[in-house]
Amino acid sequence: MSHPVDLAAIRSAAERIAPYAHRTPVMTCEALDRRAGRQLFLKCENLQKVGAFKFRGACNAVLRLADDVAARGVVTHSSGNHAQALALAARLRGIPAHIVMPRGAPAVKRRAVLDYGARVIDCEPNQAARESAAAAVQQETGATLIPPYDHPDVIAGQGTTALELLAQVDDLDGIITPVGGGGLLSGVSIAARGIDPSLRVFAAEPAGADDARRSLEAGERILQTAPDTIADGLLTSLGDLTWPIIRDHVERVITVDDEALVAAMRLVWERAKLVIEPSAAVAVAAVLSAEFRELQGLERVGVVLSGGNLDLARLPFADP
Amino acid sequence: MSHPVDLAAIRSAAERIAPYAHRTPVMTCEALDRRAGRQLFLKCENLQKVGAFKFRGACNAVLRLADDVAARGVVTHSSGNHAQALALAARLRGIPAHIVMPRGAPAVKRRAVLDYGARVIDCEPNQAARESAAAAVQQETGATLIPPYDHPDVIAGQGTTALELLAQVDDLDGIITPVGGGGLLSGVSIAARGIDPSLRVFAAEPAGADDARRSLEAGERILQTAPDTIADGLLTSLGDLTWPIIRDHVERVITVDDEALVAAMRLVWERAKLVIEPSAAVAVAAVLSAEFRELQGLERVGVVLSGGNLDLARLPFADP
Repeated sequence: MSHPVDLAAIRSAAERIAPYAHRTPVMTCEALDRRAGRQLFLKCENLQKVGAFKFRGACNAVLRLADDVAARGVVTHSSGNHAQALALAARLRGIPAHIVMPRGAPAVKRRAVLDYGARVIDCEPNQAARESAAAAVQQETGATLIPPYDHPDVIAGQGTTALELLAQVDDLDGIITPVGGGGLLSGVSIAARGIDPSLRVFAAEPAGADDARRSLEAGERILQTAPDTIADGLLTSLGDLTWPIIRDHVERVITVDDEALVAAMRLVWERAKLVIEPSAAVAVAAVLSAEFRELQGLERVGVVLSGGNLDLARLPFADP
Repeated sequence: MSHPVDLAAIRSAAERIAPYAHRTPVMTCEALDRRAGRQLFLKCENLQKVGAFKFRGACNAVLRLADDVAARGVVTHSSGNHAQALALAARLRGIPAHIVMPRGAPAVKRRAVLDYGARVIDCEPNQAARESAAAAVQQETGATLIPPYDHPDVIAGQGTTALELLAQVDDLDGIITPVGGGGLLSGVSIAARGIDPSLRVFAAEPAGADDARRSLEAGERILQTAPDTIADGLLTSLGDLTWPIIRDHVERVITVDDEALVAAMRLVWERAKLVIEPSAAVAVAAVLSAEFRELQGLERVGVVLSGGNLDLARLPFADP
């Protein structure tokens, strides 16, 4: 199983992004531990630059570009955390960023990207329109496309999350991350199992977008169609590069429904006092699930709190 | 100026509560620093046990009781963080706690106190009823009254916040805390200026409950009447013990209106990803105010984020 990213690439990425990315803290919370039945170590990527792990991958990809290529800028299509991450990474390198965004994306996300100095290009809200708009920008400007997950430099950047976590916490038995396109999960897998092949890697996925679980069970990649979940960072399918890594390294994908995810999110806000977004809460809901609690030999588990960006004026909490 | 609490008492309190209280982390946030025009060090008492600094004082007071006195239990009247703090401190020592609560207190607060194993006694929602209900419990059970702030052991416990902060951050020029009854502010004053007499201490207060500011300006204690603010932890008047300490040590009280404190709270949630309650946001709003920004010689300022308990189903955020 030869993969396009190895531990050495992740170590290089860590050195490369160190001057720009935060070494995020690891927090613990007794109230969560009690409910999970084991010790949890929360890797706080909600405290990363732009409020999500996505900055690691975008930063590594931007810094890897040769000077003459970088000078022509970067482009992506995204309305999520990758857009902000790429915008900031480009600004830090002093190069242009072009972000293709579907019409109707939340104003707060558009504003954040503009605040980082990027140019926003509107497109119709479908995949074909996004791709053709990005291709047009590439043609026009010579900018390099930096996709949100299916790219070796992006995967290597996300993997630095696990490199840090393993340096911060001794004797972890397992790590769990949310999975959408699989950039974080595949990078974390390579890093964690590269350092300790006995370390167990798990993924957490919304029941309404469960392509990773179905793929792992089928042994072949199944694409996500018609996702239905409030975890808006986890709607996409696994990628050409991320799928084989996940297939080879991930022990199990735990799915949780939106109700469980909202309850987990509220618990983290109330007890750990940390603002996390629905996509991050999926991993917490997974470790609190009966399915995960029944697994043996997992005394100490790292949980990647992947991000903390959401609209505070539209929260899913209601009185019990 | 002889005060009933000195640095030695605070150092003793720190040793006493160390096995039970969290040594809370100090966080920084570039987005806040930019807006404040200086470096801020956020002392995260929202991550303290029970979600507020109040656990320090309650724990110290409970642990200071002689065994035979402690065995008869403790009592207080409070619907806020002190109630939970005392309930947990009593449970940790294995003694009864009786909490007098006004009818109509939020169900979530009542439940939290019950969860810590305390007994809740209902009373009418006025000061006289609260005091007489607590006195009845004392008479009936022999329990010791532990008031929320005007008590040397409580003040000493709250002062451990500053002891920790000064050990965690070098070269602070100033510290700011919210002020309600003044337990936190007076304890922090004694600790901070006991360690470094040149350290400048500030208080932050809601404009709708500004008795501390008026007291400091008048040079005599003025009681709070008819407070009007959403910062529900800061409604009370300064105490007999806390007022002279504050008078002797606090340079200035900064008042902020509720709109500014909600904006500051939202900023901390959005950018620092920390859940803080309105009473804690008052200190953040104060350091962001024009009045505070104009002060000279304050490069590095510690800000006590006093607590993080609030009802997530009733948040004051609305779309801008």
